[in-house]
Amino acid sequence: MLPQWIIEKKRNGEALSAEELAFFVSGYTCGEIPDYQMSALAMAIYFRGMSPAETADLTRVMMNSGDLVDTSSITQPKVDKHSTGGIGDKISIPLAPLVAACGVVVPMISGRGLGITGGTLDKLESIPGYRTDLDAAAFLATLRDCGCSLIGQTEQLVPADRKLYALRDVTATVPSIPLIVASIMSKKLAEGIDGLVLDVKCGCGAFMRTRDDARALANALADVARAMGKRVSVFITAMDQPLGRSVGNALEIAESLDILSGKGPADSTELTLMLGAEMLRLAGVAGDDKAAMSLLLDGIASGAALRTFKAMVARHGGDLRALDHPERLPSAPFRHSCTAPVGGFVKEVHAEKIGQACLLLGAGRVKTTDRVDHAAGISGLAKIGEKVSRGGPLAILHAATKDRLAAATPLVESAFVITPQPVSVPPLILERL
Amino acid sequence: MLPQWIIEKKRNGEALSAEELAFFVSGYTCGEIPDYQMSALAMAIYFRGMSPAETADLTRVMMNSGDLVDTSSITQPKVDKHSTGGIGDKISIPLAPLVAACGVVVPMISGRGLGITGGTLDKLESIPGYRTDLDAAAFLATLRDCGCSLIGQTEQLVPADRKLYALRDVTATVPSIPLIVASIMSKKLAEGIDGLVLDVKCGCGAFMRTRDDARALANALADVARAMGKRVSVFITAMDQPLGRSVGNALEIAESLDILSGKGPADSTELTLMLGAEMLRLAGVAGDDKAAMSLLLDGIASGAALRTFKAMVARHGGDLRALDHPERLPSAPFRHSCTAPVGGFVKEVHAEKIGQACLLLGAGRVKTTDRVDHAAGISGLAKIGEKVSRGGPLAILHAATKDRLAAATPLVESAFVITPQPVSVPPLILERL
Repeated sequence: MLPQWIIEKKRNGEALSAEELAFFVSGYTCGEIPDYQMSALAMAIYFRGMSPAETADLTRVMMNSGDLVDTSSITQPKVDKHSTGGIGDKISIPLAPLVAACGVVVPMISGRGLGITGGTLDKLESIPGYRTDLDAAAFLATLRDCGCSLIGQTEQLVPADRKLYALRDVTATVPSIPLIVASIMSKKLAEGIDGLVLDVKCGCGAFMRTRDDARALANALADVARAMGKRVSVFITAMDQPLGRSVGNALEIAESLDILSGKGPADSTELTLMLGAEMLRLAGVAGDDKAAMSLLLDGIASGAALRTFKAMVARHGGDLRALDHPERLPSAPFRHSCTAPVGGFVKEVHAEKIGQACLLLGAGRVKTTDRVDHAAGISGLAKIGEKVSRGGPLAILHAATKDRLAAATPLVESAFVITPQPVSVPPLILERL
Repeated sequence: MLPQWIIEKKRNGEALSAEELAFFVSGYTCGEIPDYQMSALAMAIYFRGMSPAETADLTRVMMNSGDLVDTSSITQPKVDKHSTGGIGDKISIPLAPLVAACGVVVPMISGRGLGITGGTLDKLESIPGYRTDLDAAAFLATLRDCGCSLIGQTEQLVPADRKLYALRDVTATVPSIPLIVASIMSKKLAEGIDGLVLDVKCGCGAFMRTRDDARALANALADVARAMGKRVSVFITAMDQPLGRSVGNALEIAESLDILSGKGPADSTELTLMLGAEMLRLAGVAGDDKAAMSLLLDGIASGAALRTFKAMVARHGGDLRALDHPERLPSAPFRHSCTAPVGGFVKEVHAEKIGQACLLLGAGRVKTTDRVDHAAGISGLAKIGEKVSRGGPLAILHAATKDRLAAATPLVESAFVITPQPVSVPPLILERL
C-alpha cells in the first residue's frame, strides 16, 4: 500500500476502506506520511466527499490516534453537547452544571475561538484562576465529584486531529463536511460518552449559512455518532442574530450566571433548557421532555445548578468571588452606548457584524497566537422583535481603548435594522432531526 | 497575499492571475511555500482545471524559475519536436540530425523513461561514451557546429518543474492537463526555439487512451505555444501497436541508424519524415510538404543525415565505432523467438503489453533510481496487417538472464492477435490540428 495509491483512489471518487484510512491516518500522525500527501488527500476529499461509512471509519481511526478518556469508573450516564459555534453562544457554560445537577455526567472537552469571539475555554479563563488544562486524573476526579468538567484538548487526545486541523487551515481544506465531522466527532467520542446532543447553527453568524448546508452537516454528524453506537440528537438552531444579550468573554460568563440563576435572556435560557432536556432524555434520567424540563427548572430554582457550577470552577482553580460578585470579573475601562436613530421595532441584528465588531473590540483572535481581551465585548444587545424608542439603547460596547470603541461602533450601528411595523420574534429552534 | 487564499480561489473554480501564479511558483521554488500547499493547489487544479490563459501564465512562470538557453547567437531557425511518449518511440534520435542536415537547428532537451521503457536519454546512453550532461557552452557549440544536440535537463533549467514533477508523482496529481502542459512547455520553451512540432500519442501504449483526451492535451499544448509567440504544429498519432520493429535502448539506436540510412521500418520512417517535413515548414526552410519531403529524402540518400548524427554523437563523447558496427552496441546474452501459434494476419500487437514485457526484460525502470539494461528489449516485431505463417517469427526477446526471458515471454505472446482474414494497415497519423 502506497499513500499515493490511496490519494488516487479518493481522487477518482472511490470509497476508501477502513484499512486504507487507518494506514494513512496512523502514518500521518507518526510522521511517516508527510504533510504534502495528507493535504492532497484532504483536497481530494473536499471534492469527492465521503460516504457515511467512510466518514465513520475516518472518525474512528482519528479517535484512536491517541489516548481515550476512560470514564468506565463513573457509573452515571455520560452525555455531552456540541455546538458548531456562533456569536454569543455561551450555552455550554450554564448547560454542563445544570445537567450535572440533574444527575448526568458531562465530560466536556472544548475549544478556543478563531476568527470570531473567544471560545468556551477563553470565556472560562475570564474567571480569575480558572485552569482549562487539568490532567486526566484531575478531570475524572472533577467529573466524579461535581458531575461536570470543562477542559481543553490535551496533547494525548486525538493527535491526528490537532495535526490535520492545522494543515487544513493553511491548505484551504477546512469546509469539507466529512473532514469537519471527523474532527468534531473524533474528539467528542474520545471523551468516553454514552450520548451526544448536537446543536448545528445556521445563519449569517454561523459556519453553515443555509438550511441545506446545516442539514447536511447535521445528518453527517448524527450518522457517525450512530455508526459508533452512541445515542444522538441533533438540532438546527438559528444564528442570524447573536444568542442572548452579551457577546465577549467575561460578559458571557455574567450572562451564564444569569441563566443559572433563572434571570437570563429568553433565547439563551430557552436553548439551555431545550438542549438540557434532550441530554436528560438521552441519558435516561427523564422519560420525556416535560419531565426533563421540570427537573431542569428545579435545578435552577433550588440553586443546585449554580452550586454545581461553583464547585466545578473551584476544582479548576477559579476564584469564586468573581462569581458571587460579577463586578470582579475583568471589566473594560471604556464603554459606549449605541442608540436607536429612530423609534420602531428591531427587525435585524446581524450576527456576523456583531462578531466582527467584537473582534475589533479585542474579544476574539485572528491568529491562534493572538491574546484575547477577556473584558472586551458587547452587552445589553436589543433583540429582534423588541420595541425601541428614538435614542434608546441598542447595545453597550466594552473595550480597553477609545480607539477600539471608535473602530467598532459603526459596525455595531450597521448591524441593526429598525422598522416602524411590529416584528415577530423569529424561531430559535429551526429543526430537530 | 497568502498561499491558502490562492489555493482557495482555485478550489472554488476561479481563475488565478499571472501575479498569483508567479507568487506561488516562485515561493515554492525557493522553498518559502511548502510542499503541502503546492500539493493542495495541484489537486485543486486537477479538479478545477485551468483556462488557456492561466495555463500559459503557469508555463511562463515555471519557465522563468531558472536559466533560459540563450540561442540568440545562432542565426538559423531553431525548431524542436516533442512527443508525449509511447512504446518504441525513438523518433527524436533520427529526426534531430535529419532536420539539422536540412539547415534547421534542433536544440533538444530530453527526458528519461519512467514506468515504461527507457527515454531518449537512456537510448542515447546505450552508445558507449555518449554524455547527455553537456554544459550550456558545449550545448551551444554542438548546436552551432552540428545543427543539433540532444541533452538532458540541467539543474539550472526550470527548477520549478523538477520539484513539482517529483511532488505530483507522489500526490496523485500527474494526470492534469494544465499541469502536464506547463511541465512540457516550460522546458521546451526554455530551449530558445522559434517553433515546435508536437506529437501527441493516443492509444493503449500512450498516456492518453482516447482520441478526446489526446485532442484536449494537443489543443492545450498548442494554445500555450501560440500564447508564447511560437509557431506550432500538433499531430495526434496512433500508439496502439509499438512504433517500428524494436523496443529497448540499444535496439532502438540500431533502428534509428536504419531510418537514417533509408532502410528503417515503414511506420517509424514515415513518422520521422512527416514530423521532419513539418519542422522544415515551420522553420521556413521549405514552402510546402512536398518540398520539405524532397529535402529530407535527399538528406538520407546523400548520407548527410547519418553524418550529422555521427558528428553530434562524437561531440557528446560517443564511440562512433558502435554506429559503424552496430554489433558493438550493448547486446544481450540471451534471446528467445516468439512464434505464431497459427498462420494468418496480425490483427493486434498490444503496445502496453509489449511495454510491460520490456520492463520485465530490464529495458525500463519502475523507480527513478533504477538502472536500465541498455541491451534488453524486443526486436523483429511483426506489424499489424502482416501475414505470418504458423511457427513464423513474431518477435525476438533480448535479456540478461533466462529468467527474465521466461517472465516476459507469456506477456509478449498475449500481445499478438492473429486472424485468418486479411487485416489492413491502420493509419499512423490520426489527426493534424
